[in-house]
Order: sequence, then C-alpha cells, then structure tokens
Amino acid sequence: MMFYDFALAPSSQRVRVYLAEKGLELPTEQLNVREGAQFAEPYSTMNPFHCVPFLVLDDGVVIAESVSICRYLEELHPDPPLFGRTSAERAVVDMWGRRFELDGFLPLLHALRNHVPNFAGRVVPGTRTDLAQSEAMVGRGKEMAKVLFDRSEPHMEKNEFVAGPEFTVADITAVFTLRLAYALEMDIAASWPATHGWFQKVTARPAFQVR
Amino acid sequence: MMFYDFALAPSSQRVRVYLAEKGLELPTEQLNVREGAQFAEPYSTMNPFHCVPFLVLDDGVVIAESVSICRYLEELHPDPPLFGRTSAERAVVDMWGRRFELDGFLPLLHALRNHVPNFAGRVVPGTRTDLAQSEAMVGRGKEMAKVLFDRSEPHMEKNEFVAGPEFTVADITAVFTLRLAYALEMDIAASWPATHGWFQKVTARPAFQVR
Repeated sequence: MMFYDFALAPSSQRVRVYLAEKGLELPTEQLNVREGAQFAEPYSTMNPFHCVPFLVLDDGVVIAESVSICRYLEELHPDPPLFGRTSAERAVVDMWGRRFELDGFLPLLHALRNHVPNFAGRVVPGTRTDLAQSEAMVGRGKEMAKVLFDRSEPHMEKNEFVAGPEFTVADITAVFTLRLAYALEMDIAASWPATHGWFQKVTARPAFQVR
Repeated sequence: MMFYDFALAPSSQRVRVYLAEKGLELPTEQLNVREGAQFAEPYSTMNPFHCVPFLVLDDGVVIAESVSICRYLEELHPDPPLFGRTSAERAVVDMWGRRFELDGFLPLLHALRNHVPNFAGRVVPGTRTDLAQSEAMVGRGKEMAKVLFDRSEPHMEKNEFVAGPEFTVADITAVFTLRLAYALEMDIAASWPATHGWFQKVTARPAFQVR
C-alpha cells in the first residue's frame, strides 16, 4: 500500500498521530497540495476529491478520508484498540468522534478557510473555485463550536478522555477541533477549562509531537 | 434497549430506513422534539446534546448519533451487511458515507435550518438559541453541495450504488442528503442526472416507504 500525505495538512496529521499511537509506519509519498500536485495524474484519477490524505491498497482500491483510513488500519492492527474494545465502546467512541467532528471540526474548518487570506480561492477543501471567503461563515462556525464546547465541557469535567477512561481516536478528532478553535482565537482556557486541561494533557503525548 | 425516536426527524428516519433494510425492530419511544420533550428529564440527562434519535442499552449506556446507532446494530446483526463485507469494503463504504455527509448533508442541513421559518430560534440541532437565521449559510450550503454533486456524478454514472455494486448505509446517507437538496429546490435532475436516477431507483425500495 502507499499513503499519500502532505505533512502540513491537518487531515494528514490526524492519520499520522493515529499511526504514532499505534506504532505503525506506512510507505508514504508526499504530495504538495499547496502547489496543486493532487490535480495532476495519476493522483487526480486516484482521488477525484483532490484531498489528502489517501491510501492506495495493493489491488488499487483507494481509501480517502482520514477517519476511514484509520478505521481500515484498525481492522488490520487491532492493538492497542483506539476505536473501542466492545460493540458498545465502539459506538460510544464513534458518537463522540462525530460530535466533535460534525459540530466542531467542520464548522471551524470552514471558518478558518473563510478567514485566512491564504485560503482565498480554495474555501472548499480540494477545490480551486471563485467562491468568496465569507465572514458570515467565520462567525457562525465559531458560534456553532461554542454550542459544542458548552455541551461537552461537563462531560470533560468528569472523564479523563473524550470517550471515557481510555485514549481513543475521538481524542485525536477533538484535538484537531481544538487546534482550529485556538487558531481562530477562541478563548478555550477561560470559557471551557476542563476542555483546555484535557487538551494540554493529551497533546503532551509523544504521538502529538509528530508533525 | 430502548430507541428514542421522533418520526418526523430526518436523523430518526435514517435509522428507521436502516432497520427496515435489516429487518430489525426495536422497542421504541416517541419524543416530540418540536415540543421540547428532549429538554425534560430523564431525557436531558440521557442525551445532553438534546437530539434524536438515541439508543439506551440495558446497562444504561447511551448511543446517540444516527450512524453510531446503525454501526452498533450492525455488529449485533451482521446480515445483510450494510457497512461492507471486508475491511477494504468497510473503509470504502465509510469514505463515501463521509463524503456525502460532511460535504453535502451537513452544509444542506444548516442551509435548511437557516432558511425555513419554522427553524427560527433553533438553527443548531438540539438547541434553542438566539442565533439568527443567516442567508449566507443557505447560499454557501448549496454551493458546497454543488461541489460535492459535481464530484460524485461521474462516480454515480459508473456505479449502481454509492459505494459500488451493493446497497449500503452510504446510500441511506446520500438519500437524505439529496432530500435536503430537493427541499432547497436544487435542480438535481437537470444538473446531475445519474445522481437523480440513482435517487429514484433507491428510494423505490420498500425500506424508504417507512416514514
């Protein structure tokens, strides 16, 4: 298999943190997506969604989407379990991953892409379009993330990790959500201290030193 | 276990279509979320995210999030497989489900909630807030869905179902994405005929007659 990666892309980093937590290494090729390498062949045909990362299996099957890649690798390498140990645990990990991703990561990702001048012309991942950056998307993204953090803070006060007593892939999703929030200058420490404390603790793990 | 449901909620319908495809029935209690039943106890403590559906297991574990509920039930009842048969198939199903959900369902869900007068005061699912409905969210949601449909149409031309030759949970996610697009008066038939044809074919299945 071959892992197509771009070291600076947060979605690639999500997979690389997962790999580091699992102690896995993959044959890797860097695609410079800032310079548009994903639009050239053979990569454009491999992944017509033009995003990194993506994993190409030996039989040519392409798996894009960071979480789908991790889910695939988890089946091949179940230990240590990062998606839960039982059916119920796996569902709870999935639920918390979705909450952070759908309610926080995505609104904040779109907020950032509509805010940072460097993303002008590519507000939708994997595209070059004339969609204008929109301040309304920035404000609403932060408001939506605030709703999430208000809801998850009481849970973070009572739990060591996002999905309960053990570190899971939901923590990785949540760390990247929080990184977007910090980048957008949301005051996490003041408003959601348990979430901030969890972030400080979790990002001290060796796997998060990978860049 | 008990399945907390609201018959009119699209997220509840996603699970009920899954149940019908699997031939499963669950003990079910209706919560009228339009009248705010999810904010009363014991439901508010069960699911502080105040959304339906959610599933409560016999030991009290709560699984919210429609896809997490389906994923849990799939482990208990693997046949017929709706999440794929092999590790690679499961990853591809997951990838296509994520593409439709993250790139289409969510932007369109937010577009609808920012557009339909009945959603004023509850633009974020599971909340009652003073966040104003935003026309910018409506326009951008539809623009983002257009990007998705432009990308997925060539795939739909070549495949019988969203994730390949078999019906999977990714088709359910995609149907509910398209239903939002039709509700927002996007002209699917004219712009994305293969996607429109797939929608007509798939929604004729008996499971989609469930409301």
